[in-house]
Amino acid sequence: MITVLTGGTGGAKFVDGLAKIVPHQELTCIVNTSDDLIWWGLYVSPDVDSITYVLSGLLNPDRGWGIADDTFQCRGSMGRLGSPTWFSLGDRDLATHLTRTQLLQSGQTHSQVTAEICRRLDITARVLPMTDQRVETLVMTPVGELGFQDYFVRRWFQDPVESVRFAGVDVAKPAPGVLDAIQNADQILLAPSNPVTSIGPILAVAGIRDALRKTKAPIAAVSPIIGGAAISGPAGALMQAVGLPVSIAGVAQAYCDFLDLLIADEADASAAAAFQHPSLRIACAKSILMKTSEQRIALAQAALQMTSDLKPIPHAQEMK
Amino acid sequence: MITVLTGGTGGAKFVDGLAKIVPHQELTCIVNTSDDLIWWGLYVSPDVDSITYVLSGLLNPDRGWGIADDTFQCRGSMGRLGSPTWFSLGDRDLATHLTRTQLLQSGQTHSQVTAEICRRLDITARVLPMTDQRVETLVMTPVGELGFQDYFVRRWFQDPVESVRFAGVDVAKPAPGVLDAIQNADQILLAPSNPVTSIGPILAVAGIRDALRKTKAPIAAVSPIIGGAAISGPAGALMQAVGLPVSIAGVAQAYCDFLDLLIADEADASAAAAFQHPSLRIACAKSILMKTSEQRIALAQAALQMTSDLKPIPHAQEMK
Repeated sequence: MITVLTGGTGGAKFVDGLAKIVPHQELTCIVNTSDDLIWWGLYVSPDVDSITYVLSGLLNPDRGWGIADDTFQCRGSMGRLGSPTWFSLGDRDLATHLTRTQLLQSGQTHSQVTAEICRRLDITARVLPMTDQRVETLVMTPVGELGFQDYFVRRWFQDPVESVRFAGVDVAKPAPGVLDAIQNADQILLAPSNPVTSIGPILAVAGIRDALRKTKAPIAAVSPIIGGAAISGPAGALMQAVGLPVSIAGVAQAYCDFLDLLIADEADASAAAAFQHPSLRIACAKSILMKTSEQRIALAQAALQMTSDLKPIPHAQEMK
Repeated sequence: MITVLTGGTGGAKFVDGLAKIVPHQELTCIVNTSDDLIWWGLYVSPDVDSITYVLSGLLNPDRGWGIADDTFQCRGSMGRLGSPTWFSLGDRDLATHLTRTQLLQSGQTHSQVTAEICRRLDITARVLPMTDQRVETLVMTPVGELGFQDYFVRRWFQDPVESVRFAGVDVAKPAPGVLDAIQNADQILLAPSNPVTSIGPILAVAGIRDALRKTKAPIAAVSPIIGGAAISGPAGALMQAVGLPVSIAGVAQAYCDFLDLLIADEADASAAAAFQHPSLRIACAKSILMKTSEQRIALAQAALQMTSDLKPIPHAQEMK
């Protein structure tokens, strides 16, 4: 059993690679939900949707979000009707949000709805929202506190970030199955997602970080950073805002209390060699870029191989 | 000021003709809402939508419902996600239902929402839902009581009709502006809509029928019946079910307590000539078919002319 913690487009691309080489019944994805938003009156869960689309073969592979070959007629008409259109929902994509919104309104939880949508799309992997409670990433900037999509999509992550918080996370509980998927995994992988706003919210849900510290499964993360910059998106600015160096050392720092292996790009080989930590190693894959399907599969293969090669390493907590 | 009572695709086509020859600021449409339904979790008001699309130039002119050149990608995906798809919402059409649902959820009434959507589409005619309360047409058949769209669209109006009722109409009040638009009109037209399930629900809302009896404005109706059959749809079966002859005499009977003139097709000239009533005349237009835009305009012109030619006739109630 392989458990993946994931969020964002990098996460979707990584799961895309994994899903092509791992039997889906052996795959569990624990997915960030703190980017969720209400849009046009519908409950949209971008990271859950991307993983769902990956696993059903619907994902637009270039963007890492939305459905391949989708159209945007409804969005055009929403604009004509005076609604904002900066967050883009395709016509086929809309069906997912309509379905989720209906099922949520009928009283089902986020994880029940996600399981139901996966069932309807013949997905045999497990997709688990990190929590059934509402958690919202809020980014403090000089223009005020912005919802994540507002910061990321509407304003093109151009605002300096002063701080980040996850509203509601103090009362959030892991969704059913999440702790179990960490405790009973054979391998745990952290996708090359943004450590602050994609993996960070998952780790902030009570009990999840502790379960990662305690599990016997080897845990590896793929770095979202090459050299001194994020592969894509605002990870650099967000890491800086929370006091992490923008480097593989910064990623290592974010996860060092439970991580066994950080997988970096060959470009960071010297930094990896120089890294010293009692329970965490950094090793390099040939490339961690995922522009093509082949690159995604190669990275997934490398990550699985490197993780299964891990010798048992006492985790930080166990050393005490 | 011209006030039109309308519902269904025949109503939309008639308003299409009117809207091409009457200044929109002089036009008020009182629209049936008892065909409204919740579909995919959205509040859909088919008759209001059709009139809105007519007046904004968006209507699909052949079908008399929906938006011209719309696509149906979302519907396909809803089907894949296991939702019913027999009621067809186009991708551009969806924007209207999303907008209405959001505005209703924010606490606005149906008539406020309709006015807001009209404003956003630059519609200067007034579109008034008959009521802001929920009224539902229910059709009793041998397979049980069916919602109107279930009877009409899903089951292709093939079930024998035993009776029809308008659930909720006993507590429905005319929407703001409705009684006023009847009292202060210069002419009132009833579109060639189904007398039972399109015009019938409007007349069943407390106060509307009485206002029609009392208004000084001449009132004309265009017949939805030619010979012994409805021009389209289930009007014949529904009229029969409520005890009305399926003929222009049956239409006259449905409206005789307030109607001044029934406009029939030339094909019904002899029946029209034979018709006798103290306060209601039947006159023939050359044709009441509305297959082409020219036919719609010609019928609208004829109806306006014939109505303005009416000499004051004491209404049934006034004769008492």
